[in-house]
Amino acid sequence: MFDEIQAAHDRLDGVANRTPIHTSRTLDERVGAQVFLKCENFQRVGAFKFRGAYNAISQLDERQRAAGVLTFSSGNHAQAVALAGRLLGVETTVVMPTDAPVIKRLATEGYGARVVEYDAGEASREEIAKRLCAEGGQTLIPPFDYAHVIAGQGTAVMELLEQVEGLDLILVPVGGGGLLAGSAVACKNVRPECRIVGVEPAGGDDAARSFRTGVLQSVDKPQTIADGTRTNSLGKLNFELIRRHVDDIRTVSEAAIEDAVRFLYYRTKLVVEPSGALGVAALLSGAVEAAPRTAVILSGGNMDGSTLAAILSR
Amino acid sequence: MFDEIQAAHDRLDGVANRTPIHTSRTLDERVGAQVFLKCENFQRVGAFKFRGAYNAISQLDERQRAAGVLTFSSGNHAQAVALAGRLLGVETTVVMPTDAPVIKRLATEGYGARVVEYDAGEASREEIAKRLCAEGGQTLIPPFDYAHVIAGQGTAVMELLEQVEGLDLILVPVGGGGLLAGSAVACKNVRPECRIVGVEPAGGDDAARSFRTGVLQSVDKPQTIADGTRTNSLGKLNFELIRRHVDDIRTVSEAAIEDAVRFLYYRTKLVVEPSGALGVAALLSGAVEAAPRTAVILSGGNMDGSTLAAILSR
Repeated sequence: MFDEIQAAHDRLDGVANRTPIHTSRTLDERVGAQVFLKCENFQRVGAFKFRGAYNAISQLDERQRAAGVLTFSSGNHAQAVALAGRLLGVETTVVMPTDAPVIKRLATEGYGARVVEYDAGEASREEIAKRLCAEGGQTLIPPFDYAHVIAGQGTAVMELLEQVEGLDLILVPVGGGGLLAGSAVACKNVRPECRIVGVEPAGGDDAARSFRTGVLQSVDKPQTIADGTRTNSLGKLNFELIRRHVDDIRTVSEAAIEDAVRFLYYRTKLVVEPSGALGVAALLSGAVEAAPRTAVILSGGNMDGSTLAAILSR
Repeated sequence: MFDEIQAAHDRLDGVANRTPIHTSRTLDERVGAQVFLKCENFQRVGAFKFRGAYNAISQLDERQRAAGVLTFSSGNHAQAVALAGRLLGVETTVVMPTDAPVIKRLATEGYGARVVEYDAGEASREEIAKRLCAEGGQTLIPPFDYAHVIAGQGTAVMELLEQVEGLDLILVPVGGGGLLAGSAVACKNVRPECRIVGVEPAGGDDAARSFRTGVLQSVDKPQTIADGTRTNSLGKLNFELIRRHVDDIRTVSEAAIEDAVRFLYYRTKLVVEPSGALGVAALLSGAVEAAPRTAVILSGGNMDGSTLAAILSR
């Protein structure tokens, strides 16, 4: 997998944004360490997801590209596939529930994807997606349980390790585990002495339980404001890589996530969505003790105004 | 004045943040030019004001430092003076109206200043400040009509011209004119072929009228969400420098300002307060036509959650 991450790193050069590192004196004082924020909220489409989607679609052969790609997602992966497809001249179809927020549907269509609605009560999105692929011949680009996607997501930590020397700890949000698996492989190959810890909302703690028990666990309806992590379980390949390369997975409360979004807004002037703020939530709440040089992946910044307004009003 | 800006540039090296330049493909497409955003929202205290305050206080002699400094402001200048004073070991007093927002008072006190309240109905803040200085011997650090403050503010454009080559146009917010005056002197000395244009809310268009008529104009009660520009008129020294070095001053509507704050939130993931978004408002609304390489000073990012919530809900 590390070879694939290195190849993805080259492939994304000049295509993905090399996102900046921000620091905050207040944050450093609060946690008693040097903290480096890797700003994937400044990535194209506003989240790290562009890395994996572009890496996957760019490796399709001519025939596959001509047939187009398809994915199921109502979040950042949908927009990532849509934009990567547009850049590579590949038609994209995104399967979304009928009750997906209009803003997400419009954003995905804005990047040029065709959106197909389905009734969440009648069939699973995976079933719909597979049936459509069988009919139309498109290649499915799953949001996380897919080697080329994992390899692409791992490039954020490749960049981080080039940008910041001597890191002791990296904190990474966990949903389906694409970002965490790729980050862990990159970290342990480039700088094995650096610890890597996943952070997950307590209201959807399947990854932490899976990690602890060594058996893939799931959660039926994750209850969290961190919509990017509302997956039922880790991907299979993701779990395998996470077990092998990740040092720990910790959980944080909803209050800690909201505190982190507020802190990032007021003190760093960064728009970071709840899922993207998990690492900062872990540090500020004490769920993870900072090491002398700690990096946090701020994984995305796509947050409805109403969500932020609600968080800032509390 | 340019010598003083150069000296300030050296003085602030390693003290002020060298704020980054951000770009946005969407913004470039919308205005048909390359746009460079100078992110003073990432400056210490969240606004360019730190530059001027630190430059002014650091030039006081021993006796003056021992007696402390005083200013009148309920905005970013208050926090800037408070932090600069703390860094330089100088006691700071800030005169604020009794009805100033609690959050601004707390922030100013948080940086270590003593806050003195006054009743806005009984006396002007200038009168109160002068009386307190006469009694206590402090040096007054005015928010804009003061050479050392103007010189400090000019360092943002000094940095910008080091960071981005070949600029054709720089857009700068105007309130009292400290940032615009300093920026204009820096611009015309370093890169005279680059145009520099001030942007002001239409609801407080005293600077545009002053510039047009050549006579200092004032506005009684500026009506604008851009609280950083709610000054009654330009400073005298500021106006003199602006007349000599600025190419034009344009106004934008309240709707254009709010559109710009929303655009910056959703598309660039930057928290930028209304006053800081004036330049982007001018470009997006067409009040100023972009030149091929255009820079915009995003002057600050201190915005109450309720203000942003209101803007995002519209």
